[in-house]
Amino acid sequence: MNYYGDHIGRLIEELSRLPGIGGKSASRLAFYIVGLPDNKAESLASAILNAKRNVRYCSRCCAITDDDPCAICGSVKRDRAMIMVVEDSRDMAAYERTHEFKGLYHILHGAISPMNGIGPNELKIKELLARIETEDISEIILATNPNVEGEATAMYISRLIKPLGVLVTRIAHGVPVGGELEYVDQVTLTRAYTGRREM
Amino acid sequence: MNYYGDHIGRLIEELSRLPGIGGKSASRLAFYIVGLPDNKAESLASAILNAKRNVRYCSRCCAITDDDPCAICGSVKRDRAMIMVVEDSRDMAAYERTHEFKGLYHILHGAISPMNGIGPNELKIKELLARIETEDISEIILATNPNVEGEATAMYISRLIKPLGVLVTRIAHGVPVGGELEYVDQVTLTRAYTGRREM
Repeated sequence: MNYYGDHIGRLIEELSRLPGIGGKSASRLAFYIVGLPDNKAESLASAILNAKRNVRYCSRCCAITDDDPCAICGSVKRDRAMIMVVEDSRDMAAYERTHEFKGLYHILHGAISPMNGIGPNELKIKELLARIETEDISEIILATNPNVEGEATAMYISRLIKPLGVLVTRIAHGVPVGGELEYVDQVTLTRAYTGRREM
Repeated sequence: MNYYGDHIGRLIEELSRLPGIGGKSASRLAFYIVGLPDNKAESLASAILNAKRNVRYCSRCCAITDDDPCAICGSVKRDRAMIMVVEDSRDMAAYERTHEFKGLYHILHGAISPMNGIGPNELKIKELLARIETEDISEIILATNPNVEGEATAMYISRLIKPLGVLVTRIAHGVPVGGELEYVDQVTLTRAYTGRREM
């Protein structure tokens, strides 16, 4: 039963459809929004509409962007011979925050996941192959997530690209910096051991 | 730096102002919203605006409602001699889900909290006193939260109301049903002991 009336009820329902927001969080958020000053609530609603209406994808790397090409693809300071392949724009942002990688990106918009009905055709893999053909690329770095879907996607792409004569690399697996060995899972410990490097 | 462009950046900023939503959740939500079909994103935005524009408070119990009086205050099936005083409409909904209490409610819209600048005048206490004067009430049940602010609010209201000759009660404190004693804090264990009842 809806104890608050239809307007709040509908807002709670809409909010609870968002990922990671359950019924209780949704009603907490709904009451918070209803208690906001008018202009704050309007500004939230308009941010949703604006972002949705103005979303564009870079025609080269497929990142979400305001301008096409995006800031990274359009920059003259980037190394245009390296492409880091990531699942998501947020993964790109995570690597940008390291200030370490100076090449270009390619965003797949997901990972191969037969369980969720996502095959290679749902990802921006064709676009990646087209870039390898037309741009002067020397290395493709596969930085998909270190989980089952990400590994399968990396494996799939590497098999496609290797015959094209481009160097294909995968980001290293190992123990995370700052962690304690005691809490690291066995698979990661094994990968850290087999991937050991001379100091 | 904003790696996604201004529209998404603004949406992330707006979402991260909501309670309990940090930067990472906000960007996850923003990407989810941008990936929604147009009509779904519009329906979320319009739910926010509708709820905000149409929010009303019941002139009797101060609950959020579509109609005035609200469904509970307007119902002929409720016991009009008992008022349960709660901090929030969600607390009212929590008690309604028990199907145990058949009286009316009064929503304070918060609890006394000097740290947050909320004194008795910010709460709907005057409205409660007016109801006691004009309605035929025999019992006021104080169901504010069992924390410092809720206890202080209950104490404050009981001192105001007792001289008016109305029975004032407080919901029981004790061990929660289904819990294990081992994990219950000392204050609760003490309240459960002092509040013991003959079986």
